Amino acid sequence: MNEAPASGQQNPLAIICGGGSLPLAVADFVSGRGREVVLFPMRGAAEGTTFGQFARHWIYIGQVGKFIRLARAAGCRDVVFIGAMVRPSIWQVRPDLKALSWLTETLAAFRGGDNHLLSSMGRLLEQEGFCLLGAHEVAPEILVPLGQLAHVPASERDRADIALGLDYLRASGPFDVGQAVVVAGKHVLAVEAVEGTDQMLARIAELRANGRLRAPAGSGVLVKAPKAGQDLRFDMPSIGPRTVEGVAHAELAGIAVVAGSTIIAEPGRTVEAADRAGIFVIGVNAGAS
Amino acid sequence: MNEAPASGQQNPLAIICGGGSLPLAVADFVSGRGREVVLFPMRGAAEGTTFGQFARHWIYIGQVGKFIRLARAAGCRDVVFIGAMVRPSIWQVRPDLKALSWLTETLAAFRGGDNHLLSSMGRLLEQEGFCLLGAHEVAPEILVPLGQLAHVPASERDRADIALGLDYLRASGPFDVGQAVVVAGKHVLAVEAVEGTDQMLARIAELRANGRLRAPAGSGVLVKAPKAGQDLRFDMPSIGPRTVEGVAHAELAGIAVVAGSTIIAEPGRTVEAADRAGIFVIGVNAGAS
Repeated sequence: MNEAPASGQQNPLAIICGGGSLPLAVADFVSGRGREVVLFPMRGAAEGTTFGQFARHWIYIGQVGKFIRLARAAGCRDVVFIGAMVRPSIWQVRPDLKALSWLTETLAAFRGGDNHLLSSMGRLLEQEGFCLLGAHEVAPEILVPLGQLAHVPASERDRADIALGLDYLRASGPFDVGQAVVVAGKHVLAVEAVEGTDQMLARIAELRANGRLRAPAGSGVLVKAPKAGQDLRFDMPSIGPRTVEGVAHAELAGIAVVAGSTIIAEPGRTVEAADRAGIFVIGVNAGAS
Repeated sequence: MNEAPASGQQNPLAIICGGGSLPLAVADFVSGRGREVVLFPMRGAAEGTTFGQFARHWIYIGQVGKFIRLARAAGCRDVVFIGAMVRPSIWQVRPDLKALSWLTETLAAFRGGDNHLLSSMGRLLEQEGFCLLGAHEVAPEILVPLGQLAHVPASERDRADIALGLDYLRASGPFDVGQAVVVAGKHVLAVEAVEGTDQMLARIAELRANGRLRAPAGSGVLVKAPKAGQDLRFDMPSIGPRTVEGVAHAELAGIAVVAGSTIIAEPGRTVEAADRAGIFVIGVNAGAS
């Protein structure tokens, strides 16, 4: 077996990059601590993103063999996967032989749910001698800390909604459903599943526009939490300026996420946007209720 | 206290009517058994509905005092509430004094959730000497029976999805959220909250059109079940031709509902539509899993 170099701070970090600003932020934090990084931006996801001066190799999502070859050649052992992924169009998968044999095995045992698919990809990389890390392990700066991030505080009423939202997400966690709910006046208004947070928030805005919400404008909280057993190395709840926009458009009071288990993209712009919209952003303890 | 006549088969049945075809169906079934009925169609909900030859008094939703007066005058003691309600526009509420004093009391103790509001209205009618019944109690013909309703049977795969859906609804039941989920390949694709079943199904169709569903067309089940502690006299899960249309448009395999606790509007047209679309409709035991 073609062993990758031993893990440790010295080997260059391979970052498989989806879309958005997070991959570059992670690269900057890691590189700022003196560790070399090699980027692997994914076709169909990372186009239009800037990657500064970092070494990079564009790959299609199905080019698992190519990634392994290039990452080994660059001396990488630790691998991080970060950034927004959309379901790729079939032309953007381009599976190579390694990917095909992995897919065959994985689909044979497929039980549904993204967690399963991603964990299986993680095991494959581990079998090949890589060490898959969470972006938050190499760049903890991207995590939401405990407490209030923007100027507006969460009210007592908001805290009751947050507690109910966390309870709901805990109860539904075993089902590998969404990571988010909207709660207002101790009433669950929307539950996220496949559609994602942005679309759930758009739904709230639409229900409000149609007069179908009892909760007054300026009340209600977007609550996000990791699913039970979620592999945080692949898929962590995240918020960013767009989440704030969605929450403001839905006329909610604020955003509550689990501190230490939620990524914040562009913290500066996110907090500025929250302050402009007058909404709160708070990192809470998952057990709060 | 101005007592209404004693309950029993002999007193005329007051039916407060929302929209759709169910109120007339219930009136027909009850009247067919020789019991007199008096309809109270609600402004803003029941317009455009035909009510045959039945005696009727149009009321605004806030005219609680007027309803009580007219129902007593007609000799009614038993009251049924049936039909589709939309959140009324403020001009269609027209609260009278009785409604206002009830609202004041209710809102003071308001904890959110439709169940609470509706149960409180039920208690008010009971205090006034009426007996609030479920439409299914006076017209059990409107309930979905156990077993397969249309031609296409549910497959083993469908049954696994149904079991997961019922498990999910049981887990989320205590939260007074929706009554429905879409499950495909043992994966929860959508959870209904305030938006309602039709809009949740439209979301699935949209996700499918955008290539964001892994589940192939022709797989997946709409699963509906009553919430824990739901007052079935006011709000029961229901299906009808429009549900079938939504499921067909979302390209799911079928519909599973809890037998004996789900209303079927226009059973003939519903089953015909299901057969035309090649989808199954099945009444299951709530405990099935």
